[in-house]
Amino acid sequence: MQKLIKPLIQKNDSKIILVVLDGVGGLPINGKTELEAANTPNLDALARESACGLHVPVAYGITPGSGPGHLGIFGYDPIEFQIGRGILEALGLGLEVRKTDVAVRCNYATIKNGIIVDRRAGRIPTEQSKKLTEKLQDEIKKIDDVELIFAPGMEHRFAVLFRFPNDLEPDAGMLPDTDPQKEGKAPLPATPLSKSAEKVAKVAEKLITKVHEILKSEEKANFILTRGFAQMPHIPPFEEAFGLKSLAIATYPMYRGLARLVGMDTPAIEGSVEDEIKFLKQKYNDYDFFFLHVKKIDSYGEDGNFEGKAARIEEFDKLLPQILELKSDVLIITGDHSTPAMLKSHSWHPVPVLLKSPYVLGGLCSGFSERECTKGELGILPAVNLIPLALANSLRLKKFGA
Amino acid sequence: MQKLIKPLIQKNDSKIILVVLDGVGGLPINGKTELEAANTPNLDALARESACGLHVPVAYGITPGSGPGHLGIFGYDPIEFQIGRGILEALGLGLEVRKTDVAVRCNYATIKNGIIVDRRAGRIPTEQSKKLTEKLQDEIKKIDDVELIFAPGMEHRFAVLFRFPNDLEPDAGMLPDTDPQKEGKAPLPATPLSKSAEKVAKVAEKLITKVHEILKSEEKANFILTRGFAQMPHIPPFEEAFGLKSLAIATYPMYRGLARLVGMDTPAIEGSVEDEIKFLKQKYNDYDFFFLHVKKIDSYGEDGNFEGKAARIEEFDKLLPQILELKSDVLIITGDHSTPAMLKSHSWHPVPVLLKSPYVLGGLCSGFSERECTKGELGILPAVNLIPLALANSLRLKKFGA
Repeated sequence: MQKLIKPLIQKNDSKIILVVLDGVGGLPINGKTELEAANTPNLDALARESACGLHVPVAYGITPGSGPGHLGIFGYDPIEFQIGRGILEALGLGLEVRKTDVAVRCNYATIKNGIIVDRRAGRIPTEQSKKLTEKLQDEIKKIDDVELIFAPGMEHRFAVLFRFPNDLEPDAGMLPDTDPQKEGKAPLPATPLSKSAEKVAKVAEKLITKVHEILKSEEKANFILTRGFAQMPHIPPFEEAFGLKSLAIATYPMYRGLARLVGMDTPAIEGSVEDEIKFLKQKYNDYDFFFLHVKKIDSYGEDGNFEGKAARIEEFDKLLPQILELKSDVLIITGDHSTPAMLKSHSWHPVPVLLKSPYVLGGLCSGFSERECTKGELGILPAVNLIPLALANSLRLKKFGA
Repeated sequence: MQKLIKPLIQKNDSKIILVVLDGVGGLPINGKTELEAANTPNLDALARESACGLHVPVAYGITPGSGPGHLGIFGYDPIEFQIGRGILEALGLGLEVRKTDVAVRCNYATIKNGIIVDRRAGRIPTEQSKKLTEKLQDEIKKIDDVELIFAPGMEHRFAVLFRFPNDLEPDAGMLPDTDPQKEGKAPLPATPLSKSAEKVAKVAEKLITKVHEILKSEEKANFILTRGFAQMPHIPPFEEAFGLKSLAIATYPMYRGLARLVGMDTPAIEGSVEDEIKFLKQKYNDYDFFFLHVKKIDSYGEDGNFEGKAARIEEFDKLLPQILELKSDVLIITGDHSTPAMLKSHSWHPVPVLLKSPYVLGGLCSGFSERECTKGELGILPAVNLIPLALANSLRLKKFGA
């Protein structure tokens, strides 16, 4: 698809805004979905004059994680471009991952006479875990010529980047987990699964030994288990693939990290959705494309809090006029996946999407909801088509063939 | 797609029922399709609370045979997994085909001085043909170390399995037809088209010679022509691919045979659709997945009998509450292809489908028909997506990516 798009790109001064209402899609409880239950006069009015539909993030029946969910709406086939566990964890903990890095998730664990007796070190409190991770960072800055970068996580979890001095082969991260998955077993060796993973394995073995030396007097967290070694996926940068200078506006590290994977600018910002929109206005002249991420809708869905999720949707609806004031050439509002409060988790359901531009039919949906969007002119379409549609609607794509 | 699904499978106690109303899709005569003309209060009520849509069995414009039609709704790409003619014929005639078999369709023919004068032996009556085939089976049990298994068919047709003592190479069935396609020509030689087909060719030549010796005094059926040599396709078993222990409930050998190709349990049962449903109830605790096949709707379509087809749909509608009583976690009702009475044949038209589970929107279609299903939340989707959707709706798929 990108091969088709790239030769057709023509630049112009148009502006494209992609608003991602994380996990916005839902399912009916007492007859109405979260979007249907929420009072959303602004979204509904916009839907009436937009091209609407539902996008399938990955494939029918597939529930996407946040990684594949975002890659799809950024225009990258999430099956072709898969993001390793270690990378996602590092991004989620706010680390900036580079091409020369191998990332890995770690657990603090309890080891006794060479046997893992607790894979999670009694789920030690986050505060305590953070102190240990900071101590490790203080004492281990380098192993051989490899820089080590630690990021504290929740409870027993943290992440480590192995930053090599030079570029890595594409299979350098091919290492199995050292986590034996069950208590009562010895940790597994980090046996390299490829020639180029050998140097990563060496550093991993040395790191594990060194950490044990430093932590051996700890009662619980006296060892580490590594899980999900991974490298940066080789993703063509967004600007190269689609000709758009792009800015990610997201307050959560994970989503900035995902945007950074595709080469968007990702300044660290904090605050509310209103603050995000203020930032959008400040930067509006500096970019072609804006990814604005609204997190809280998903969080309430994950908690199974139907009313809370609907209330967060209403909050966004009240702020929507501030985005409309910018009169962008193209405005897309959608989610990265559905998170029905009924399921308390991400789900496989297609996600409502609206696309506003001067070049749409409109007039097919009475509002913005899962059911109304089934009537729209976009139909049910794979998520990867949204960016090409944004490019077309901003007149940034030339004719294909004569 | 199966590569994507397999690592996501998680098992649970859910039950999935797939009802295939063979050839259910139709076209309007006097303004209504067969489904629209039939009085189907139960199907309509179910459609109102289900996810509805239309599935494309193979590809737009492609009219599927029963083989590809079923493979698609079983979750196998019917273009990737093609079933040879000989295999389908053998399955249709009730033979159990094994991995060590090569199957071939045969015609009785009339030969005179080495020239085929009638390719169908005057379409000899089925009774007479059956006797000849039984005679051949009596006199030819083995050729070299290859077991021969004959199955009588309609009129001049029958099928033969070559059962080899060992597994065959994947290209062992690569032999051309010996049928010259025109009267007045000599039969063609069974020249092997691959190295591994040589042993099949030898047996074929010996079989043809032997049959001629046995039948040489017959007035019409004194020779045989072979058509469509084929091996079992290499299809990943359903349980391995989708994690479902599955039972096929079908009274026609062809459909049991198709289910057996993908590794479903296929006990030989007889009787009406009501008997099939009784059997479903008896076996309900023993399986995860049930394929229930309703044949007669298609047969009336093939005969161009619009009212008869609508009446068979009404018959099923009356029985539907017995299936609903089971309260399966997921119920899918669809067809393997359309068979409009107007066309008196299978057709390329997308097939109405409804999927009932606790995790659907519903409320978009007023009933179960071709036109109402266009309004549903499933849209128009390739048939291979139905099994992934069934897995998702029974909560049998983990999240893809983090």
